[in-house]
Amino acid sequence: MSEQQGTIDRTVDVAVVGAGMAGIKAALELEARGLNVCVLEARDRVGGRLKPGHIAGHKIDNGGQWVGPQQKLLLAEAETHGVEKFDQYRQGKSVLDFKGKQSLSSSDVPKMPFVSLLDLQRTVSKLDALAFSLPSDAPWSVRNAAGLDGQTFETWIQANCWTEYTREFLRMVTRSLLCCEPKHVSFLYFLEYVRGGEGLDILLGVKGGAQEAKFRGGAHQITEKMAAKLKSPVIYEAPARAITQHDTHVEIVTDRGTVTAERAVIAIPPTLASRINFANSLPVRRDHLMQRMPMGTVIKVHVAYDKPFWRDKGLSGMGVSDLMPCNVFFDQSPEDASCGILVGFIDADAAAEYSTAGDNARRQAVIDSATQFFGPEAKNPIDYVDNDWTSEEWSKGCYVAHMAPGVMTTFGAALREPCGRIHWAGTETATQWQGYMDGALQSGIRVAAEIADRRGLAMAAE
Amino acid sequence: MSEQQGTIDRTVDVAVVGAGMAGIKAALELEARGLNVCVLEARDRVGGRLKPGHIAGHKIDNGGQWVGPQQKLLLAEAETHGVEKFDQYRQGKSVLDFKGKQSLSSSDVPKMPFVSLLDLQRTVSKLDALAFSLPSDAPWSVRNAAGLDGQTFETWIQANCWTEYTREFLRMVTRSLLCCEPKHVSFLYFLEYVRGGEGLDILLGVKGGAQEAKFRGGAHQITEKMAAKLKSPVIYEAPARAITQHDTHVEIVTDRGTVTAERAVIAIPPTLASRINFANSLPVRRDHLMQRMPMGTVIKVHVAYDKPFWRDKGLSGMGVSDLMPCNVFFDQSPEDASCGILVGFIDADAAAEYSTAGDNARRQAVIDSATQFFGPEAKNPIDYVDNDWTSEEWSKGCYVAHMAPGVMTTFGAALREPCGRIHWAGTETATQWQGYMDGALQSGIRVAAEIADRRGLAMAAE
Repeated sequence: MSEQQGTIDRTVDVAVVGAGMAGIKAALELEARGLNVCVLEARDRVGGRLKPGHIAGHKIDNGGQWVGPQQKLLLAEAETHGVEKFDQYRQGKSVLDFKGKQSLSSSDVPKMPFVSLLDLQRTVSKLDALAFSLPSDAPWSVRNAAGLDGQTFETWIQANCWTEYTREFLRMVTRSLLCCEPKHVSFLYFLEYVRGGEGLDILLGVKGGAQEAKFRGGAHQITEKMAAKLKSPVIYEAPARAITQHDTHVEIVTDRGTVTAERAVIAIPPTLASRINFANSLPVRRDHLMQRMPMGTVIKVHVAYDKPFWRDKGLSGMGVSDLMPCNVFFDQSPEDASCGILVGFIDADAAAEYSTAGDNARRQAVIDSATQFFGPEAKNPIDYVDNDWTSEEWSKGCYVAHMAPGVMTTFGAALREPCGRIHWAGTETATQWQGYMDGALQSGIRVAAEIADRRGLAMAAE
Repeated sequence: MSEQQGTIDRTVDVAVVGAGMAGIKAALELEARGLNVCVLEARDRVGGRLKPGHIAGHKIDNGGQWVGPQQKLLLAEAETHGVEKFDQYRQGKSVLDFKGKQSLSSSDVPKMPFVSLLDLQRTVSKLDALAFSLPSDAPWSVRNAAGLDGQTFETWIQANCWTEYTREFLRMVTRSLLCCEPKHVSFLYFLEYVRGGEGLDILLGVKGGAQEAKFRGGAHQITEKMAAKLKSPVIYEAPARAITQHDTHVEIVTDRGTVTAERAVIAIPPTLASRINFANSLPVRRDHLMQRMPMGTVIKVHVAYDKPFWRDKGLSGMGVSDLMPCNVFFDQSPEDASCGILVGFIDADAAAEYSTAGDNARRQAVIDSATQFFGPEAKNPIDYVDNDWTSEEWSKGCYVAHMAPGVMTTFGAALREPCGRIHWAGTETATQWQGYMDGALQSGIRVAAEIADRRGLAMAAE
């Protein structure tokens, strides 16, 4: 159900800003508690960083898409709404283009000299051990937080890896996970992200990992089906522009009218939240945190061919590169293989570059990358689609916000802390699988419970 | 002249957003070229980060105040408007509270073991040499930019200083200059700031340095007198909320109406500029740069006494500490010494803490710091005033924005680059004395010339 016309002036118990998975989950949980809720969305669709698309007549996800077996909340939500999953295609060898050399592998790790492999294993174990040492609700309070947060991941990489192979591998990993370069991110924040994703093997893995499966018909359907269950339909094209707190309520001014609510849930990325006019009512740490959580930069691309020609060559359609503009590919063909589709990513600094390089240059760079990975058949696609998340007005980047050094230890405690009648959701606020759909769901569930608690306390006090 | 009532709808050649020193200078320069200009200001006053105040019946600067002999643009501007300067009081010894020990000194450097002094000199020379090696118009293009920008200043401090004294000294320096901790700032950005300020000795110095003198009646008068010279008066309480670019003009929607202009100058801090709705018309690098230039955190405090009691003890009223909440003090007494006034700063992480600690706790912390520096006479002030810049709605921090690691090399080139009909000013965009009044003036002069050039080109093309 949606509501598209006229003014939306109304009074509700809770107003939710943002109809991404986090906001809709929060609204459903609040409605289940008997509250009157309204969800305000800037776009003309639900889903936020989940976004439907088409290529060569087939449905695709232009936004988030994968699910791993650890992501129990997402798996349960999909099941509730009858959205089925199927395995990511991974038969055959992956192409690893690394330090200027190509190799084929049945693992996700590039072919490396023995000492580099050893170094990589040693380094990944060390990173995982450090990550798992963080307290999940307050990573900023870990012993030696100052040391971990005082440096970039790049600094750690340079100081701790024995070989240039390992260094380049970890740079590639950072681009793939956070859509930024290791120079941009706090080492502590990187570790927190690894902790949330249950370690690097799971985060990076296909079988048994975060890319194991995808959703038949697209992940974006889950938010659509969730939204359809709302008692009060999502209000579209109603970006929140100003939020004022009063003693007994909050007022949310949108482009389509004003909503008065007892409490508000802000379920959008921090950098977008910073653009709402809170009339200076937020505590200093919250405002300054939002000044310091930029979004990563990424362009998601799809290229379609008349058939998945790579499969005939014994290739999985997976490719990973340290140098190519489009540095990661997966097979995104329809289940019946009626055509061949590759999905790829231009991320981190390359995304900033190719976002402004022009449509043709970007398309050509992607096709060139695919050709380098999978051979000359890649030169002649039947269709091409890309989604430049770096310039999406209502995301301002993807997949997720990150923190530069020092931010977590100085301002991190404000991440989930309610500010009067304003509560914070969104995948960035999760304590597990932040940056993923699963984290978005967790944040929606948490924020609804938080509001129920506060309302309970307020009622008990009356 | 000011204009305070009614709608402000109008069409001008250039609209300037922000009536700080940069915006007003730009407007004056544009008017001098015969253009029709209007300056839009969110506050009910001009000056931005320059702000008048009073303590114990005396005028003070709650914002920027000092001038050094290198700051030729500011000195000239002050002279033009008949604002006189007088020397910062510096007779007597300074109190240096460092690593838990107090010492008196007639230099600005804490009393240290010989090896630490040697290390400090060596380190400062090294920093200056690196700073002066940066190309002034494009620091991101220096050889080894990736290495310098890939680390925090904290990382560099830890790797390059021999003694803990030097390390703590440089942390203190970072707090004083950028109002952030060394963990927050890119080493390359720190160097760029040092280059802009002509080296650490000049930046930190009183006699011959950036704190040599102040303005009789307050620095804020300069912007007031500049604004009074504008042909078209500043429009107050008109924050720019949305800016739309068209083929031939820009539209600026404010709280008081809409201004149509051929071009716009944005002369506010980047994080505030990011909160204007540009309807997604900015290039990716510009938007992402503004997501990544947070303001520093600082509270400026004044404490008044019936007389400058420290002078009788042979003290200058200068104090510097590595641990106290209020870690820098200067003598701010009126020239006739009719009472004693200390000016101090709570900065970086301490500012985030004391901004939320409550008025009484903050006041007490300041008085305790003054007492530790200058003795028990400091316990009984006759007046106290503070200005919490971290929570000023229309600055969102002070003195200046900084860049975390990686930001300058990935996004820095967008700092001054015009975006269609939108031009960027503000002290952050200066190539000399960025963060200072002098840099604000330079940016105003530069942006006016930039617009004149483009108009000239456009006219030549017709």
